[in-house]
Amino acid sequence: MKLYEKLADEIAEAVRRGVFAAGERIPSVRQASQQHGVSIKTVLHAYALLESRGLVETRPQSGYFVREAALAALRPETRRGNGTPAPPVAAEVDVSRLVLSTLRSIRAHDAVPFGSPYPDPSLFPWRRINQYANAIARRQASWNLLDDLPPGNPELIRQIARRYTENGMPVDPGEIIITVGATEAINLSLQAVARPGDTVAVESPTYYAMLHAIERLGMRAIEVATHPVDGIDLDALAQVIARQKIAACMVMPNFQNPLGFQMPDTRKRQLVELLAVHQIPVIENDVYQELYFGEARPASLKSFDTQGLVLHCASFSKSLTASYRIGWALPGRFRAQVEKLKFLNTLTTPSVPQVAVADYLRQDGYDRHLRHVRKVYRQQASIMSAMVRRFFPAGTRLSAPQGGYVLWVELPEHIDSMKLYQAALARSITVGPGMMFSTRNHYRHFIRLNYSYPWTTQSEAALKTLGELVTQMV
Amino acid sequence: MKLYEKLADEIAEAVRRGVFAAGERIPSVRQASQQHGVSIKTVLHAYALLESRGLVETRPQSGYFVREAALAALRPETRRGNGTPAPPVAAEVDVSRLVLSTLRSIRAHDAVPFGSPYPDPSLFPWRRINQYANAIARRQASWNLLDDLPPGNPELIRQIARRYTENGMPVDPGEIIITVGATEAINLSLQAVARPGDTVAVESPTYYAMLHAIERLGMRAIEVATHPVDGIDLDALAQVIARQKIAACMVMPNFQNPLGFQMPDTRKRQLVELLAVHQIPVIENDVYQELYFGEARPASLKSFDTQGLVLHCASFSKSLTASYRIGWALPGRFRAQVEKLKFLNTLTTPSVPQVAVADYLRQDGYDRHLRHVRKVYRQQASIMSAMVRRFFPAGTRLSAPQGGYVLWVELPEHIDSMKLYQAALARSITVGPGMMFSTRNHYRHFIRLNYSYPWTTQSEAALKTLGELVTQMV
Repeated sequence: MKLYEKLADEIAEAVRRGVFAAGERIPSVRQASQQHGVSIKTVLHAYALLESRGLVETRPQSGYFVREAALAALRPETRRGNGTPAPPVAAEVDVSRLVLSTLRSIRAHDAVPFGSPYPDPSLFPWRRINQYANAIARRQASWNLLDDLPPGNPELIRQIARRYTENGMPVDPGEIIITVGATEAINLSLQAVARPGDTVAVESPTYYAMLHAIERLGMRAIEVATHPVDGIDLDALAQVIARQKIAACMVMPNFQNPLGFQMPDTRKRQLVELLAVHQIPVIENDVYQELYFGEARPASLKSFDTQGLVLHCASFSKSLTASYRIGWALPGRFRAQVEKLKFLNTLTTPSVPQVAVADYLRQDGYDRHLRHVRKVYRQQASIMSAMVRRFFPAGTRLSAPQGGYVLWVELPEHIDSMKLYQAALARSITVGPGMMFSTRNHYRHFIRLNYSYPWTTQSEAALKTLGELVTQMV
Repeated sequence: MKLYEKLADEIAEAVRRGVFAAGERIPSVRQASQQHGVSIKTVLHAYALLESRGLVETRPQSGYFVREAALAALRPETRRGNGTPAPPVAAEVDVSRLVLSTLRSIRAHDAVPFGSPYPDPSLFPWRRINQYANAIARRQASWNLLDDLPPGNPELIRQIARRYTENGMPVDPGEIIITVGATEAINLSLQAVARPGDTVAVESPTYYAMLHAIERLGMRAIEVATHPVDGIDLDALAQVIARQKIAACMVMPNFQNPLGFQMPDTRKRQLVELLAVHQIPVIENDVYQELYFGEARPASLKSFDTQGLVLHCASFSKSLTASYRIGWALPGRFRAQVEKLKFLNTLTTPSVPQVAVADYLRQDGYDRHLRHVRKVYRQQASIMSAMVRRFFPAGTRLSAPQGGYVLWVELPEHIDSMKLYQAALARSITVGPGMMFSTRNHYRHFIRLNYSYPWTTQSEAALKTLGELVTQMV
């Protein structure tokens, strides 16, 4: 192949991949000559070839541009969408990959998001928070990374501490470490207290992000029976601890995903005491703490901790803004390790989102916003529960969430929720397959449904379709 | 202690910790009564006590506020600054903690930042990028996390691919994964290719973030002799590979931190080939790729890779904006694993920063900005080199950086750079102690100096002082 043909092929490939989109300029002749170490003449030859193939066109005084019809000029079998990355080849099938592909399918199919783990973002006070971000951008001439090293922005830390304190849980700001969402807080906390090969006790079913953290760090999860109202079974947990060495325990005592329970305070205290006796650290995922249906924010395990053994993790992603990715950890006696791990993992959390959230908390109506969200979720929980009872066959059982935005549905025993997931997806409806919530293939006949989105005739029709699919599968 | 005294003490403690700052409102009597489960009368009693202690004052129709003089009213020995977190207790002394405390000391002492690893942020086009962020915030009503799941924002991915392609390294956008800075990209890449207990070959000296990643994942680093002009010694590396199992290799072929060399292309190709023969993955940290002093962007190892064994990591933190925390990985054949690990580690990278950088790249003058930065760094490199030669004693040797913004200085052999670090810090000057660049206590008589900040009479005086300190220590 001649040099100019090689260059032309390279650029054609870039057009095919969407690197140069229709209407965009490709590198100038001079640029291309320098970059590829070829003569101007070779580039001109290559560009003429691209032009003759219908891929680019010249514009006077401007250079060479990708033609609108360029993609059509390329062989269809090698074409790929406008910069959309190729679907990854699944090197291994596991829970985390199942979760990721579920999430993707919601967007790819513009499907009814019953399967989404995230709250409807249209409820977030997005404009207000962005106004704070914009104001920061206007007033700040530059930003020094050194100002926001771990533990994070001091004012945001103070606002978080303030909020806990006002809600009856006094917190030392010096304990807080800002993270990239609760996901990072949980990962760092787990790594701070356990090592590869260690065993970690979790609820069953358990929120899959906890299973992911365990899987990723090369640890083993042991699933402990969990009551849909009372939370993790303390006797079962005590037996597990008696039988084997448990390096840590991971739980979600408030509005557990997927069960939605609020663990009673007495049981929270008993759990903390049981673990304190054995000096076992407990990672508390409290991301739904603000989304209660009751009168007041429920207590966290952290408030019963006298030993510094509770590593409390939370975020604003479920209650204020998900895309800002602001989470935090209160790691108790493991603070130094978690802070160091944060530094090693992502260095710092982006600055502007931190300050914007701090400004919002100090100056805006977070409590008013939360009251509205809680009311909406409470209403939609009861609508969806009623609709599931109406449309789903006999033998279906439901959780009774006391907060959060997900419903856990037990289908008749022989239903395979993966098959339901596929059948629903074909109709542009998503559900969360129960298998995601266990590493042991439990919960095959369970699904998780998200009720954060407004209840519409479309969602009602979708739930009806879902009920029909289940009925057919019985 | 009576109930009202306990409540008063709790609030006093929150004031002491800076949770409630001077001038701020404390919870209303009704709120406090609900939260603490005590009567209104008890709260009133507690608040009266706080008032009598000089901590709070009432404002008609508004409630109780922390007095400006409140901190003075508290015992001075228990006072702590305005929400500033307490200095962490060093649970263990190690390289990463040394690095973190060096970084902190720069800010805490408002010191001359010769010791900083980061570029002067005032060179970044901060206002321009923020304008794009603001425009996004104005035009977008809400943001769905599902849109920016790994691999990341499609338009940003396309812009990055486009830039590589224009610079002579054609890249498939489908390979790119957006991360929270290069730090996360490096961590994920290393975890994708090696396991705890594995041995990873690195340059010596090596950029400490690589050592951190290895340390954190429970792997072992083996330091391979590295030439200050040619880069890692290929014969030495071949011998290491012949002697033991090497799971991966981590290098920085362009403007290595701290040595500043640009590995010659022939040696880059040889390195890639040597590792390909043994099927050893190589993690390429290419964060300084845009900061070259020569005519054109140097080649990356990635461009010589035919096997998909190069995991190329980079970011905008050194060349465009550090606080946005946008990095990426091109993980070759390990793409699926890295994408999954990204999902598990931090879920997604914040959306607005991604789109703002994409808009900047598409619409703004990144190349013009970079030309300016390169010119400034090249000039300041030669100024600082000349000044070190002038002020430092005989026996001092310097690197000759071909890009980037750090100088590597070898002091006379008996100098302990940790002592120099301490002595300099007492004079509000920071340096990067050489020990940070090795896990084996090498480079005790080396320091790294940052020349990205404008050269002023203050910096000249600081460098002179540093030279005098070294001379005294000889």
